[in-house]
Amino acid sequence: MPDTILVPAETLHRQLTAVFAAWGMSGEHANTAAMIMVDTDLTGIDSHGVGMLPHYQRLFREGRLDPKATPTIARDHGPGVLIDGHAAIGHVPAHLATTTAIEKAREFGIGVAAVTNSNHYGAAGWYARLAAEQGMIALSLTNSSHLMVPLRGTQPALGTNPIAFSAPTRDPARPVLLDMATTTVAYGKISIARRAGKPLPPGWALDENGEPELDSARASDARRLAPLGGTREQGAHKGYGLALMVEILCATLTGAGSAQLHTGHFFLVLNPTAFRDREGFQADLDDLLTRLRDNPPADPAAPVLIPGDPEHDTTVERRRDGIPMVQTLVEEVRVVCEESGAAFLL
Amino acid sequence: MPDTILVPAETLHRQLTAVFAAWGMSGEHANTAAMIMVDTDLTGIDSHGVGMLPHYQRLFREGRLDPKATPTIARDHGPGVLIDGHAAIGHVPAHLATTTAIEKAREFGIGVAAVTNSNHYGAAGWYARLAAEQGMIALSLTNSSHLMVPLRGTQPALGTNPIAFSAPTRDPARPVLLDMATTTVAYGKISIARRAGKPLPPGWALDENGEPELDSARASDARRLAPLGGTREQGAHKGYGLALMVEILCATLTGAGSAQLHTGHFFLVLNPTAFRDREGFQADLDDLLTRLRDNPPADPAAPVLIPGDPEHDTTVERRRDGIPMVQTLVEEVRVVCEESGAAFLL
Repeated sequence: MPDTILVPAETLHRQLTAVFAAWGMSGEHANTAAMIMVDTDLTGIDSHGVGMLPHYQRLFREGRLDPKATPTIARDHGPGVLIDGHAAIGHVPAHLATTTAIEKAREFGIGVAAVTNSNHYGAAGWYARLAAEQGMIALSLTNSSHLMVPLRGTQPALGTNPIAFSAPTRDPARPVLLDMATTTVAYGKISIARRAGKPLPPGWALDENGEPELDSARASDARRLAPLGGTREQGAHKGYGLALMVEILCATLTGAGSAQLHTGHFFLVLNPTAFRDREGFQADLDDLLTRLRDNPPADPAAPVLIPGDPEHDTTVERRRDGIPMVQTLVEEVRVVCEESGAAFLL
Repeated sequence: MPDTILVPAETLHRQLTAVFAAWGMSGEHANTAAMIMVDTDLTGIDSHGVGMLPHYQRLFREGRLDPKATPTIARDHGPGVLIDGHAAIGHVPAHLATTTAIEKAREFGIGVAAVTNSNHYGAAGWYARLAAEQGMIALSLTNSSHLMVPLRGTQPALGTNPIAFSAPTRDPARPVLLDMATTTVAYGKISIARRAGKPLPPGWALDENGEPELDSARASDARRLAPLGGTREQGAHKGYGLALMVEILCATLTGAGSAQLHTGHFFLVLNPTAFRDREGFQADLDDLLTRLRDNPPADPAAPVLIPGDPEHDTTVERRRDGIPMVQTLVEEVRVVCEESGAAFLL
């Protein structure tokens, strides 16, 4: 049995919708969540696509995720809305929030959608990118389960609280797309180092005394990530501060709350044409990106990239060749299917 | 002659307004710029207060800064405005932008003010804090002169492009206040290391080949700062991506442009009561901040801080004792006064 199989995107989509349907999710919601998860696997962010399915199943079984929930607009105040996820899988209220904020930005020039009572919504960048594909600038933020130790502290108290930002270029397939955890690395990188039996560099994880943890096995068990910057000298107060900003916008402003597994999101959408003409905006953005790409590289074989370039290239490759799935993940999906009473299609 | 003198805030304010008046600035504008600069010195951000005066004088003499300019609202589109600074000192259009965005947030729940054709506006945090003092959540961003080398590159192509965020607590004097450069350190820290004759840690500055520069004198001359993260392994693509986000919002969306010394700003103001009740918001924020402060510290003598704590403490101290100014800076201010035909008051 090969260690990795290549799964066409369409097959993975069918597999995911089959599982979600078995959980009682509507066809529309199942399709939305599956589409976002498959797109995420296509971009190469393997930690946030189908790899999350076993976690979603756990949330479902624990009663934290309600597949039958339909998100509602709880408040509608001009350009801003509050959406109640009613404990749906996060992708469904986040998709409603993004499309609503885009509509608001068409009408008001600006749209904000805050989401409460949600769950893990996959990759933050997916939602920002959706807005950029429609000519908008967007910010997508979410809080998440506690993994980050605040600077000077010793216990995880904030999530990896990602920040995603997207801006439209003239090529709808190549927006500027930043999608970053506010920890130095996402938890997945610790797991990868553990599997490889490699030590961690300082600045990734912390031990119980708040000192750098270099043992990847211990770090993987302890789940104490350092804020972006890693140490005070290298700016860890900034990663901590950014995570707190995300927490306030996603958990406090929305009312989702900051307890473990309480999840909220925040979306800002800006219509560039509310501020200036489209042509001027796109021409200036082209100039800026060209100037960055033309920066003399340290290594001529590795030119300066624009955020989103690696995801774009991986998507082209995986649409052609299929999505690589390791056997352990395929087996996990098989178990989810069996336990859910869904057909196994991989 | 002592190396440092202590100057009362009121004296420094009189000194600055005297200089600005001598340049031809209106009383109102001189007062606004002086107030923001003095407040910044009070908070301890010495690099962005009176220390900028010689730079502003250079901009004035080069015809880049017009003390007589009056910023105008160039576009007014519901909750969003575009403000033209007409090359005024940055504090004046940035102050107009913040107060306008606050008014918009009162009316629409959300306000955005984009500023074009501006200049250096001092500390980004001042404007976010102003909004928080009025019960609002705010983001304040600006682009700045090129100091950051993009990841994989060798030449400065973006500014230190700061991100400031503020949120109101029940104590108006203690908002959450994050104010951070998107480089590992601001340029001022390189100068401080040079003066002390100390080497730099890797991750702060780069040499002409894009490798870490550890010699503080060479780094100070070369002006090549590393993005927050410092190296790819420690997340420098994130600092670079955040700086690009700031550049797009401040230079591209506004039309200010990204050439050297082309400056724009971006302000977002959110009224929490558009999304939920005030009491719930403040109670949840209290809980979040208390939970962070109570995180078991690595060093019991150095508890976990909330962004803004150091600035608050320094302000209390400097209001009582005066603002410390090193003699070299006092002399620089004396020269500015002489050349401007303003009374020297320090």
